[in-house]
Amino acid sequence: MSGKPLRLGIAGLGTVGVGVIKLLHENAQAIAARAGRSIEVVSVSARSRNRDRGVDLSGLTWHDDPRALAEDPNVDVVLELIGGAEGAARELVEAALLRGRDVVTANKALLALHGARLADMARENGASLLFEASVAGGIPAIKLVREGLAADRLLRVGGILNGTCNYILTAMRESGRGFDEILAEAQALGYAEADPSTDVDGWDAAHKLAILAGLAFGRPVAFNTLHVEGIRSIAACDQAFAQEFGYRIKLLGTARRGEDDAIEAWMRPCMVAQTAPIAAVDGVFNAVITEGAFSGPMLIEGRGAGAGPTASAVVADVIDLSRGTALPVWGTAPRPEISCQPRASLSGEYYLRLLVQDRSGVVAEIAAALRDAGVSLRAMSQHAAEVGTQSGVPLAVITHATQESAMLSVLTALEKLDSVLAEPVLMKIETV
Amino acid sequence: MSGKPLRLGIAGLGTVGVGVIKLLHENAQAIAARAGRSIEVVSVSARSRNRDRGVDLSGLTWHDDPRALAEDPNVDVVLELIGGAEGAARELVEAALLRGRDVVTANKALLALHGARLADMARENGASLLFEASVAGGIPAIKLVREGLAADRLLRVGGILNGTCNYILTAMRESGRGFDEILAEAQALGYAEADPSTDVDGWDAAHKLAILAGLAFGRPVAFNTLHVEGIRSIAACDQAFAQEFGYRIKLLGTARRGEDDAIEAWMRPCMVAQTAPIAAVDGVFNAVITEGAFSGPMLIEGRGAGAGPTASAVVADVIDLSRGTALPVWGTAPRPEISCQPRASLSGEYYLRLLVQDRSGVVAEIAAALRDAGVSLRAMSQHAAEVGTQSGVPLAVITHATQESAMLSVLTALEKLDSVLAEPVLMKIETV
Repeated sequence: MSGKPLRLGIAGLGTVGVGVIKLLHENAQAIAARAGRSIEVVSVSARSRNRDRGVDLSGLTWHDDPRALAEDPNVDVVLELIGGAEGAARELVEAALLRGRDVVTANKALLALHGARLADMARENGASLLFEASVAGGIPAIKLVREGLAADRLLRVGGILNGTCNYILTAMRESGRGFDEILAEAQALGYAEADPSTDVDGWDAAHKLAILAGLAFGRPVAFNTLHVEGIRSIAACDQAFAQEFGYRIKLLGTARRGEDDAIEAWMRPCMVAQTAPIAAVDGVFNAVITEGAFSGPMLIEGRGAGAGPTASAVVADVIDLSRGTALPVWGTAPRPEISCQPRASLSGEYYLRLLVQDRSGVVAEIAAALRDAGVSLRAMSQHAAEVGTQSGVPLAVITHATQESAMLSVLTALEKLDSVLAEPVLMKIETV
Repeated sequence: MSGKPLRLGIAGLGTVGVGVIKLLHENAQAIAARAGRSIEVVSVSARSRNRDRGVDLSGLTWHDDPRALAEDPNVDVVLELIGGAEGAARELVEAALLRGRDVVTANKALLALHGARLADMARENGASLLFEASVAGGIPAIKLVREGLAADRLLRVGGILNGTCNYILTAMRESGRGFDEILAEAQALGYAEADPSTDVDGWDAAHKLAILAGLAFGRPVAFNTLHVEGIRSIAACDQAFAQEFGYRIKLLGTARRGEDDAIEAWMRPCMVAQTAPIAAVDGVFNAVITEGAFSGPMLIEGRGAGAGPTASAVVADVIDLSRGTALPVWGTAPRPEISCQPRASLSGEYYLRLLVQDRSGVVAEIAAALRDAGVSLRAMSQHAAEVGTQSGVPLAVITHATQESAMLSVLTALEKLDSVLAEPVLMKIETV
């Protein structure tokens, strides 16, 4: 074992930053054995200097400005645990990379939005940028895709990447209650933020998917070309219809490599068969799925968030750095961003749920709208009006395989019908 | 990209060796981008020179003796794909390591039985020994445990590690048929070898478990101290009892770290709850489970065998070597082997199935034997005699948590009873 310790500077002392300090302390000996030398935290930066965080920070250099931590000459590796795609987190990471200093981050938004630029900066300055904790918490998803499957031609990567949404959808299914009620409960339990939009509107999960897609296909994906939908529109009746048709509703992300290496990538609520392995991934658990031309299908599930799992991933990156592992950000020499196919070019079976007037002739109108768009029906079901809800009855159809462009035409046609009382809910039925 | 290609010598041209050549050919460009240089096969060795293997071997140096391949000055990395813990495979790997030459192998028996010695040889000669393909085929289980979870304190590692056994148990459950009939079918389909003992007696899976345990706990496990049982004793009536009690039967391996870092490790058929994620891993699929103090529980499932998945794992190791990743075999500096706890010190709930005389008083005799050993019953069930089988009726009991030593005393007591007509079947009930 080399005598010289690896010195860390930690920016951000929230639950993850504190988790990292605790993990380094509790497992110090085993970590040193694996890293080939001891790992020491030497400086920290956070907003409030006086908060009691339950860990001993005495003897550490304190920087009020995180950028100063990037310039601290005693720091070998900078840990960015602040979060957010802009502001202090981005400034810190860029300052460190420009100095040729290695960075470990848990910041999914930063990588998804600025990954191409950061990869260039890392390469030009001979620095490493590791981000295992940015996707799926304690699950080594990045290592799986970038190293474990490096030899294979990946055809697909994706999964359930947001624990808050998976918790809400699971609780809705199990209780029969609506989205708003379960969200409020999740906020009270600390499973959802006071401002839940990053989670429930799909952005957090989409950031993670963009990172996985970039690794799977060896080049960054232009984030603004991903199709992203959240779960706010899912109602109790959708859960009931899903059960009836043999499906479960999951906020699912998929990135697929098509012909001519065109990329399809989206994060949206989907119907998946109840018997699919991913259907059984419930509550706050995350799952990453891959499909390779040689390795076949693979699924890994575990805790996708929380101080312990995230700290485990952050420190695994630190050990990799200590061992001298230094891979390019996207696994290969930097290549330009690739755009995803437009939504209209997607295809598959679809679930369409409407709230319609409870009178004769309505089903004929809906069926005509589908026929006019060339969409063929596989199943249909109408439920009684929910007690205490607005007027109208829920009606669901399952289509045969079709183009998403056809379904978008159907939505346009339905807008004009007086018999359709609310915004339709469209979900992809996904074979996973 | 560096101009100099990485030159491989492949010993063993069975399905895996041929799969590696095909994969390197089909994904050549992407692999070179990830490896930082091109990868070339320059020499090969196999038993029959004239067999048509469906790949072009012209231009490659042929060695009749695999040891000559280890000494070929044009070879940078030796791929050992012969198999077997002794003989040509071992000689080749040792010869290569002694020359300081890097080795990639898919050989689980070699690592499980000689891993401590090979780790010493690799370190002393400055060579790397990588073996991702030795455990769970295309699943990067080694990388997951040795690198992805390197920061965590692993409490448990294990899983379903033999696809042949999992296929047989799944087919028995689904068809209601017996072991012998399903084994014959599996042999006809090519899922089981003509001599099936390495698979069905648990040895192949136990070798893989020993490797995972060594990585999880940072030191090799003495293989001869593992408790290993196969699946030959499982009968159709056991599948019926499992269904009745809410379980599924899996050949499950577990290595657990107890107090004072004592290690419990075994491979044996177990009852697992039907609702456990691992219960859904069916057919030829493999699954690896881990539980870390920080990362929590994790499960990864995929194809555990076959040319494609195994080749994917072998070439991923080659890419790691090309990138300069060079970890010690067990993840830390060599440490002496550790022995596992004796079987008698295990504990848990148990399933005990007997074939008994169909007369009054028998249940009382069995209950007395359990009582005398201090074992308390949780459930009992007796089925009608199976048509066409030997005389006697199957009787199953589920115990409350107890010591395995007590169950071994029960087995000794039951041997003396005339009412017990055949060797009892004892299975651990495992919470996973």
